[in-house]
Amino acid sequence: MAIQFSNRMELLKASEIREILKLTQQPDIISFAGGLPAPELFPIAEMEKVSVKVLQEMGIEALQYSPTEGYAPLREKIASRMAKVGVDTVADEVLIISGSQQGLDFSGKIFLNPGDVVVCESPSYLGAINAFKAYECQFLEIDTDDNGMIMEDLEAKLAKTENAKMIYVIPDFQNPSGRTWSLERRERLLEIASQYDLPIVEDNPYGELRFEGEIPPSLRSLDKEGRVIFLGSFSKTFCPGLRLGWVNADPELLEKYIFVKQGSDLQTSSMSQRELNMFMDDYDLDAHIEKIKVVYKKRRDLMMETIKKEFPAEAKFTYPEGGLFTWVELPEHINTRDLMVKAVENKVAFVPGGSFFPSGDKENAMRINYSNMPEDKIVEGITRLGALLKEEMEK
Amino acid sequence: MAIQFSNRMELLKASEIREILKLTQQPDIISFAGGLPAPELFPIAEMEKVSVKVLQEMGIEALQYSPTEGYAPLREKIASRMAKVGVDTVADEVLIISGSQQGLDFSGKIFLNPGDVVVCESPSYLGAINAFKAYECQFLEIDTDDNGMIMEDLEAKLAKTENAKMIYVIPDFQNPSGRTWSLERRERLLEIASQYDLPIVEDNPYGELRFEGEIPPSLRSLDKEGRVIFLGSFSKTFCPGLRLGWVNADPELLEKYIFVKQGSDLQTSSMSQRELNMFMDDYDLDAHIEKIKVVYKKRRDLMMETIKKEFPAEAKFTYPEGGLFTWVELPEHINTRDLMVKAVENKVAFVPGGSFFPSGDKENAMRINYSNMPEDKIVEGITRLGALLKEEMEK
Repeated sequence: MAIQFSNRMELLKASEIREILKLTQQPDIISFAGGLPAPELFPIAEMEKVSVKVLQEMGIEALQYSPTEGYAPLREKIASRMAKVGVDTVADEVLIISGSQQGLDFSGKIFLNPGDVVVCESPSYLGAINAFKAYECQFLEIDTDDNGMIMEDLEAKLAKTENAKMIYVIPDFQNPSGRTWSLERRERLLEIASQYDLPIVEDNPYGELRFEGEIPPSLRSLDKEGRVIFLGSFSKTFCPGLRLGWVNADPELLEKYIFVKQGSDLQTSSMSQRELNMFMDDYDLDAHIEKIKVVYKKRRDLMMETIKKEFPAEAKFTYPEGGLFTWVELPEHINTRDLMVKAVENKVAFVPGGSFFPSGDKENAMRINYSNMPEDKIVEGITRLGALLKEEMEK
Repeated sequence: MAIQFSNRMELLKASEIREILKLTQQPDIISFAGGLPAPELFPIAEMEKVSVKVLQEMGIEALQYSPTEGYAPLREKIASRMAKVGVDTVADEVLIISGSQQGLDFSGKIFLNPGDVVVCESPSYLGAINAFKAYECQFLEIDTDDNGMIMEDLEAKLAKTENAKMIYVIPDFQNPSGRTWSLERRERLLEIASQYDLPIVEDNPYGELRFEGEIPPSLRSLDKEGRVIFLGSFSKTFCPGLRLGWVNADPELLEKYIFVKQGSDLQTSSMSQRELNMFMDDYDLDAHIEKIKVVYKKRRDLMMETIKKEFPAEAKFTYPEGGLFTWVELPEHINTRDLMVKAVENKVAFVPGGSFFPSGDKENAMRINYSNMPEDKIVEGITRLGALLKEEMEK
């Protein structure tokens, strides 16, 4: 038997993170690999009350098919919450999706023909890279620094590129780097996108988890031309297991996402949507987010402190003002895929940086998560990793 | 601004059923349009108990990220249940998805390049047609009769077709026709698929809702070569609001679905999966299905009886032995899209048949659902529709 697959299937591999997460599910491993929220903060008791109330008050609706666009009261609440990132919008500009990953898949479907080019940060989120690859695209990786994407590099590379069709960025606490874009870069990106008439997919799953300073205006809030599609998520501010996210875009663009949602899975769970909506009615989501921030800030502080103390001086790392990750760059002779094997032997895990470069040519970085491990394990794990790195440096 | 969309977006329209469902959400309309289960049968009280228990016993797991493949105990239960359609399989051959619609989208993604041909029944499920269209395919529509797809027509048309890449069929209580394939046709389809080395996507959301006779062996159970991908759903046997379905296929094929699931939405809701699994542990899903069958059989009987009495003699209709739909064919001069406008004025609704033909060239049929309306409304609605049809016949 030689069943033929579509061309795209040659490009798809299992996500490296998912494979690593399997390895790291041994209970004695200290894992900085996943992007997992701290489970001890999940509002389990509240969810219990909310689930019962949803079933008692609207059980039929919660278990029946419901509109593709999403549950109207939840769409309204999300529209109001967009004010946090400076966006003045309405429920009709919000589509509920099953986690923001689904918005990445839809973006690929809506904008990309085979051979088209996605402009992205270097490094960029590997889940997005994999989602877009399914549409047989190319990637134009733009250099980044502590202020985000370097605009001179973007201009130079775009001028030499045909078929650029979409810009994909994570301006707040970027995955994997933890960096946040300056206002100036945000404004310049919009000018350049306008010049080339490109849509921008702004992925913002972490923005609300800011430990210090002010939330900068989102690209969508600065956009006067309706070219920004904003992807939001409740996976980091509430819980990921329910699979709830949203798309916020001008109606003409949002309509495309709604069409694609219909064909892809009809709608997101009627019950999950009502549970989250009821949670937001009966409890204070913002107060819940404040609790998460206190815990993550403490972990971030402790991790940065321990890295400074335990990692070799040659290791450069970013200082995230929020979100879940820091990014460590090592001397070029260190290959973190090889290092990962030794790390797992030493019962500590991270994600090798190579997965975050579509071109796959940079192997000397690592993404480290601080949200999921308790304080004592952060110190222990980073210390182990530091010892391993020093050993490698001396080779 | 002239943002460019992918070529596929020119082919996608909003689903006609979803648009009609919006029209028919006025409470005084008698709607035979949707494929909605009877909501009065939803196990709301049981779901309440199950939700609480899941959160109490495994709250963290239920709210956290979980493996793409699905919740292991649920995969095991589904594997065992596949015996109902004659399939001997294991948990590793089951992927949990967010409703079987998602399996249709994934099938398009896995097998289709632009211009490739999907072989399907004429008529076929419009949600599948829309899902596949997103992969810019063509359709080869094969004639059908009361025993399913006509094999002579399939052979003749396949012999003249290049680029056929996938066969898509609904052998049990087909949507929209309500028909079930004979064993002979099932066996012959597998021979022909083998000859052309094509994968078969077997969509079976209704098979367990059989009111009389025996469940015939599924294509997957008859397949000796591992070319059948079986799509199952809990939307009709449990409830659709949770969005739970599955793919059952040999490991080599299932692996592709798992890759695609990762990029599309990472995983199906951790909580919904555990709720369904707990429901199956603590209650008897088969007993629940028996209850559904008693109600639907009564509605089917009443609808068929009323159609016989009230519809003009020229109307031909199918006799479904299970599932949710009957299919009515009218003389060629009747256009059911036009009829639908008058029907809605008369507060009764159905789905015009045209949407179920990819070529869109047959407008004299209608799909009528009997699962969602109580008995008195079935009689009243079919009587109204009959009067309208007689009026049209006389023109």
